Amino acid sequence: MTEQVTHADMANAIRSLAMDAVEAANSGHPGLPMGCADIATVLFTKVMKFDPADHKWADRDRFVLSAGHGSMLLYASLYLLGYEDMTLDQVKRFRQLNSKTAGHPEFHFAHGIETTTGPLGQGLGNAVGMALAEAKLAAEFGTELVDHHTWVLAGDGCLMEGISQESISMAGHFGLNKLVVIWDNNGITIDGKVSNADSTDQITRFKASGWNTIEIDGHDPVAIEEALLAAKASDRPTLVAAKTTIGYGAPKKAGTAGVHGSPLGAEELAGAKQALGIDYPAFEVPTEIVGAWRTAGARHKQTHAEWADRLAGAAPELRDEFTRRMLGELPAAFPEAIDAFKRKLAEEKPKVATRKSSQNALEVINGVVPETLGGSADLTGSNNTNTSQTKPFTATDRTGRYMHYGIREHGMAAAMNGVALHGGLIPYGGTFLVFTDYARPSIRLSALMGQRVVYVMTHDSIGLGEDGPTHQPVEHLAALRAIPNLLVMRPADAVEALECWQIALEQTTRPSVLALSRQNLPTVRTEYVMENKSARGAYSLAGPADADAVIFATGSEVAIALEGRELLEAEGISARVVSVPSLELLAEQSDAYRTDLIGNAKARVAIEAGIGLSWGKLLGDRGRFVGMTGFGASGKAEDLYAFFGITGKAIVEAVHAQL
Amino acid sequence: MTEQVTHADMANAIRSLAMDAVEAANSGHPGLPMGCADIATVLFTKVMKFDPADHKWADRDRFVLSAGHGSMLLYASLYLLGYEDMTLDQVKRFRQLNSKTAGHPEFHFAHGIETTTGPLGQGLGNAVGMALAEAKLAAEFGTELVDHHTWVLAGDGCLMEGISQESISMAGHFGLNKLVVIWDNNGITIDGKVSNADSTDQITRFKASGWNTIEIDGHDPVAIEEALLAAKASDRPTLVAAKTTIGYGAPKKAGTAGVHGSPLGAEELAGAKQALGIDYPAFEVPTEIVGAWRTAGARHKQTHAEWADRLAGAAPELRDEFTRRMLGELPAAFPEAIDAFKRKLAEEKPKVATRKSSQNALEVINGVVPETLGGSADLTGSNNTNTSQTKPFTATDRTGRYMHYGIREHGMAAAMNGVALHGGLIPYGGTFLVFTDYARPSIRLSALMGQRVVYVMTHDSIGLGEDGPTHQPVEHLAALRAIPNLLVMRPADAVEALECWQIALEQTTRPSVLALSRQNLPTVRTEYVMENKSARGAYSLAGPADADAVIFATGSEVAIALEGRELLEAEGISARVVSVPSLELLAEQSDAYRTDLIGNAKARVAIEAGIGLSWGKLLGDRGRFVGMTGFGASGKAEDLYAFFGITGKAIVEAVHAQL
Repeated sequence: MTEQVTHADMANAIRSLAMDAVEAANSGHPGLPMGCADIATVLFTKVMKFDPADHKWADRDRFVLSAGHGSMLLYASLYLLGYEDMTLDQVKRFRQLNSKTAGHPEFHFAHGIETTTGPLGQGLGNAVGMALAEAKLAAEFGTELVDHHTWVLAGDGCLMEGISQESISMAGHFGLNKLVVIWDNNGITIDGKVSNADSTDQITRFKASGWNTIEIDGHDPVAIEEALLAAKASDRPTLVAAKTTIGYGAPKKAGTAGVHGSPLGAEELAGAKQALGIDYPAFEVPTEIVGAWRTAGARHKQTHAEWADRLAGAAPELRDEFTRRMLGELPAAFPEAIDAFKRKLAEEKPKVATRKSSQNALEVINGVVPETLGGSADLTGSNNTNTSQTKPFTATDRTGRYMHYGIREHGMAAAMNGVALHGGLIPYGGTFLVFTDYARPSIRLSALMGQRVVYVMTHDSIGLGEDGPTHQPVEHLAALRAIPNLLVMRPADAVEALECWQIALEQTTRPSVLALSRQNLPTVRTEYVMENKSARGAYSLAGPADADAVIFATGSEVAIALEGRELLEAEGISARVVSVPSLELLAEQSDAYRTDLIGNAKARVAIEAGIGLSWGKLLGDRGRFVGMTGFGASGKAEDLYAFFGITGKAIVEAVHAQL
Repeated sequence: MTEQVTHADMANAIRSLAMDAVEAANSGHPGLPMGCADIATVLFTKVMKFDPADHKWADRDRFVLSAGHGSMLLYASLYLLGYEDMTLDQVKRFRQLNSKTAGHPEFHFAHGIETTTGPLGQGLGNAVGMALAEAKLAAEFGTELVDHHTWVLAGDGCLMEGISQESISMAGHFGLNKLVVIWDNNGITIDGKVSNADSTDQITRFKASGWNTIEIDGHDPVAIEEALLAAKASDRPTLVAAKTTIGYGAPKKAGTAGVHGSPLGAEELAGAKQALGIDYPAFEVPTEIVGAWRTAGARHKQTHAEWADRLAGAAPELRDEFTRRMLGELPAAFPEAIDAFKRKLAEEKPKVATRKSSQNALEVINGVVPETLGGSADLTGSNNTNTSQTKPFTATDRTGRYMHYGIREHGMAAAMNGVALHGGLIPYGGTFLVFTDYARPSIRLSALMGQRVVYVMTHDSIGLGEDGPTHQPVEHLAALRAIPNLLVMRPADAVEALECWQIALEQTTRPSVLALSRQNLPTVRTEYVMENKSARGAYSLAGPADADAVIFATGSEVAIALEGRELLEAEGISARVVSVPSLELLAEQSDAYRTDLIGNAKARVAIEAGIGLSWGKLLGDRGRFVGMTGFGASGKAEDLYAFFGITGKAIVEAVHAQL
């Protein structure tokens, strides 16, 4: 029976479901699914390796719909391929609250959605990370266990976004030959023709970064299959430039911006179905067509089983390590190693910058956690993200575990998301805190997807000194704390730095930002305790429980708070210093815990070398903030702290004003 | 006497001052100034058009040091060229607090610094805007008054950043032939060799976007001059790829990362001077060499005078308009036009989205303010940034006043900074509020430089509906409010939208963000008053002065606050609604004004469809926030408001909890 089902029938099933779902929702993007249905049909039913029965199969090919607005292409395909949770009912509930079929593909909403896309270019960046993870894990565990491809469908918007250049050049440089980007070259954007805004020769551009390129008619199934197979075999990453017609089949709107992001309307929809030869009612794809899809969807069952046999038959150590790594569990030796180093720090009491403390912590971590994949956006010596274990990963040596990401903060963050999504590795990467702005769209997606990515952000205040206001973060702690589900930690010394690293690695559903100083800081946690005090978000560091004044401080300002406390005590005013490594973790504590921190203090002060936005709630009606009110300046760190009044004396004045 | 001064002498004067200043500061970047001294000498003394005696000369060439860390190249050149405020004393105070010679070039700190650079790639983006402004103004006022070039010195970092692709492709597409980018192709980055992280063929890449390209030895003055003159004459934007040696002259460190960002040290410095033949003491460039520079610096005096004559001799209307435009003053007809439209709105009481209200306001503004340059990052029909007056600016028609910026939010924002810095035009550009993340590094620089750029950010909350969490801003209002010197405004209706536009255009030292709704909103300001109430930041909209409860609300939530008030009044609880179009403007009011807004209210509520971070201070110890605590969801706007509890009923509950 399925012999009679043609490629066109199968592709039209996607088109039909996409048109119907967008029409039912009265909202959405029919143009891409209609234009790319031929590509998706060939890719999913003939080329890609996956098993709908096990969406977590470690050696599956990954598919990334970078042009996330075309979500119905993915949902329709997942339904047709037989992913159980993508029911027809879900397709019908496209874009409705609490459906799996959100406006843009949301990671974890449904099996087969490998990453959240929609913000353009991000998927491409994620895919670079996935291909990177594959290459690294293949080098580590062998191609018997790790040998898969990463496929991206990207639109003109993805390629126009700057992040695309960072991602393309990174993939080319690192020779990620198992990455294939299919460009939906339809020549149309929301404002009209691509030619209104861009005339870049994309083929030449990709070639300039070392890519293999293939140009095809994106509606010719034979050409598509040949191109995808050739891409798969390439020794370089491949761009398949597929010339398509957006809204393929729509009699009046095909090839125009009118079909990009709006329902077709009843008449145009009927016309499209007629033109395409779709003669079945809305949402009712004939059984034989669904059957052909399902058969194709199940075609790698055997491949999967053979892979499972290889894993089962592997050396026990390799097998267990691979399994642990793909589950994302930390090694058993991790907590002990942290604890042993913590004892050492309490003894040594180093006076170093927290960026250095972070490196020292990483030296221990990288020794016991082989899955960390370090890196920096060309600030290795400043971020201190390298350790004795971090040999570089290169095009010719995939056994390295350190990425020279280049001056590509955004591409780095998007790639780290991809690495985390792939699994088997824990990515961390560094730049200056101020340049989180460059990576912000990807940091947001780390948080939205709940991925364990660690952002090592050094030079975290005016304390970086002479580089001046362009390099001095002032608003960044507040702006990062504003992102939901992002853990922002600013350790005060070597002990807190270690604790914060432990917290970051133990997260399973959220990313972390570590804000670290350039300048040296004394150890303030001078006595060993086993408890990870930073995990509470805030804790009393010095001073009596019944103090008249309480001083909240983070990072480099904790030492200044301690100075302020001494000045107050000298005046006979009792004061307590509360170290606040993380406001998010503090917010998770009980009301009683937070109330206890404030105690009966008649004066509250918060000190942080940034703006005060984050502190309003903790300070309440009367509390005072000591920090920045505007941009920084170029000068020596000590001059800047004095100039901007971030001093022990300012704390004393803030307390006086309240008592 | 100056005949004896050679090119090498002049270039070495830059090298010498740069080495000395970095050494004295014990901080900074000697590598670029030493490597690019030959280029700078030729560019400044032979090719560029400017007059140190009048740094505001409208028709001067613009120079942008996109690789801002090489600031000493610029400072040394400005001093040598005879810019009066760049004294030798300033050079000696490099990187010290309150000097003009900050770590990175800061706009307005010294004459001849055309833009603030340091965050890589930004200068390149600014330069595209400057060249755009030049092309547009030349079309408008004629090449007799406007005929100058924009020169950029960019490093490997600038070209690796994603924004470079957006800027390059934009410049190529719009045919900005008077833009010349000189690439300091030294092959070195902070982490070592460029080849550790990138292997892009930049020449091919620029060609792919329609650029003219020239490759030269960056230490050959003849080749440099020929290339720059050829670039100047090109009908396309030009990349001059100049092969240089970073730290040229340093005996051991030249050509290595070691010379990029650290002082040379006494021994290496002495060795470099010896190798270069610099035989004078630190900071003491011989008079004849300074003289040769000064003579070259003054060489366009006559050109400048002739230009001034042409301006003086131009038709009075043209002259006055050009002068007004370059001073950045609004037309006299502006306030009246706003007022007339405000009267009309109070009568008509439209129920439209504020993105539509913004367009209606723009229709009036664009009619009387010819200097607005509109645009959108490919969301014209969604941002409503076009009006009847906005014919597109294209490669072949420079009389247009609307930019199809393409899917390049970052490039758009950087270009808008450049347009504003150039002068003569007021740029505004649109995208979705959530995508301010993509443009954030440039928005920060708008604020740091105090430029009048207007960001038209629509789809400002979960109210955008089905596109879901990737497109729904939640933290963005807070994150933007965190940026110092940025005016964030969220109008509640058509009247406030008009008022906010008026405020934005009347700013002279800061940029504005307008956060606008996708969904329709009723007019809440139903009675005409001449006063721009939004200019106060917040004002009482409804309810008695002695109300028991005060409800603060912004934008689309003002109407919900009014619903909440009615529910409370029905229960016998008196309540007042305060509309808060801008927290920044409110913060500028007197304490008494703010206290009055709260009055004697026993309950305070703030409602905003975003996170509560911004509201801590206004709510104090007991106030409650109604809004978001995490990411949004895909669904109909009304379903989402109900699901997330942003309702009149939630306001009532929040009041109950306090009374």
